Amino acid sequence: MTDIPRDHPRYQSLVTREMLVKGVRDGITSMQGLIAHGRGEAFDYLLGEKTTAPALGAEKAAVAMLLLARNPVVSVNGNAAALAAPEMVALAKEVNAGVEVNLFHRTEERVGKIAGLLRSNGCEPLGVHPDRLIPGLSHDRAKASSEGIFTADVVLVPLEDGDRCEALVKMGKKVIVVDLNPLSRSARTATVTIVDNIVRALPNMVKLAEEMKSLPRPELEKIAGGFSNETALSAALDAMMETVQSSKQH
Amino acid sequence: MTDIPRDHPRYQSLVTREMLVKGVRDGITSMQGLIAHGRGEAFDYLLGEKTTAPALGAEKAAVAMLLLARNPVVSVNGNAAALAAPEMVALAKEVNAGVEVNLFHRTEERVGKIAGLLRSNGCEPLGVHPDRLIPGLSHDRAKASSEGIFTADVVLVPLEDGDRCEALVKMGKKVIVVDLNPLSRSARTATVTIVDNIVRALPNMVKLAEEMKSLPRPELEKIAGGFSNETALSAALDAMMETVQSSKQH
Repeated sequence: MTDIPRDHPRYQSLVTREMLVKGVRDGITSMQGLIAHGRGEAFDYLLGEKTTAPALGAEKAAVAMLLLARNPVVSVNGNAAALAAPEMVALAKEVNAGVEVNLFHRTEERVGKIAGLLRSNGCEPLGVHPDRLIPGLSHDRAKASSEGIFTADVVLVPLEDGDRCEALVKMGKKVIVVDLNPLSRSARTATVTIVDNIVRALPNMVKLAEEMKSLPRPELEKIAGGFSNETALSAALDAMMETVQSSKQH
Repeated sequence: MTDIPRDHPRYQSLVTREMLVKGVRDGITSMQGLIAHGRGEAFDYLLGEKTTAPALGAEKAAVAMLLLARNPVVSVNGNAAALAAPEMVALAKEVNAGVEVNLFHRTEERVGKIAGLLRSNGCEPLGVHPDRLIPGLSHDRAKASSEGIFTADVVLVPLEDGDRCEALVKMGKKVIVVDLNPLSRSARTATVTIVDNIVRALPNMVKLAEEMKSLPRPELEKIAGGFSNETALSAALDAMMETVQSSKQH
């Protein structure tokens, strides 16, 4: 890993980048994932590289939905694996969810490496031998496991492609995405969109799940039901416009 | 190349990504270039992934400047080579410009590969054996050729680093950049900033050069002189804010 000075003003962002480059070298992250991350970086910059109050609200609603679910599943792709594997596994444990490897640029080699990483974090992942296809997607992008994403009622899919997000919603699932771009199709289609960096969102959600798992169901239902994705996206866009506006004035 | 379904709503953007990934595999593009491209993607999203009217105006002014130049040079880096090598060469021919390989993360191997790609597109590039240094930059990033960038009066440097853009401007050159981020230092420092995706900007410029090369000099001078970079950048930011605003209303 390139040595990054701890007092660099963008230390966290640079370390995150190094984690992904390492992910590519380890065969976990795709090169396309590196580009997608760059895109996220730009939106994160416009957000001020922090968890906004509306994003924290979305994280809380998402955790409530996962706790209320019959069969929740946490989906892991190459970027999520490189950036937040331990937290994804910890969250799944807290909310009793399955963990499924689910790649946009699927190769069996990459599936195997990500599965190995998840096992080393203490869980046995689904999706290594997918046996079902999500309707409306081309073959390789449709693969899902019958115990996991295919039958899940609530799915957390960080950093998901728009087409796939839409296909999951069409199956009647509640879909939670983590997406720094509030204009993306995923962001607009999902049930809950967390406009936050995955390296901040997942630790937040693990902590929230620890606190919230003892809440009675009606209280969780109130938290989940009180969330409006439209309002949350609008608030994220407002935060970004403020950054652009203030830079125009300089 | 991963197979992208033709009916994917973001087909062009995904194909562009694949071209860059292929660029890395071919030793033409750097991994840092992938992340930089992703940042550009975010701003392109905000622009609506189209050439705006102000961007087309900037492209026209840039072509006029290149046609008026005594010694124009088109600079090619790893991302430009992967995304628009044939168009860079075609533009250089239309405006009688030199083509120079000019890398931020310079390795002789990458220079050789890009030079080969340019030769296969029908031009003999400069910059393979640079003999001068641009003042104010560290050694490897300062390399330029005496017939090319070092003595050029007008330089087209798509996707250029802020420090290098500034150093070229300080040498008294007219600098044209293609940069999707209107807030970047390159965008603010350049003589003409084209806030557009290189995969749209370069084909536009080739077509404009074909049309404009027969124009009399006073007319070209009017087009070049009528351009204000500050106004263009402000218009680009406005276009981005409009996208955000209108998406808020849906």
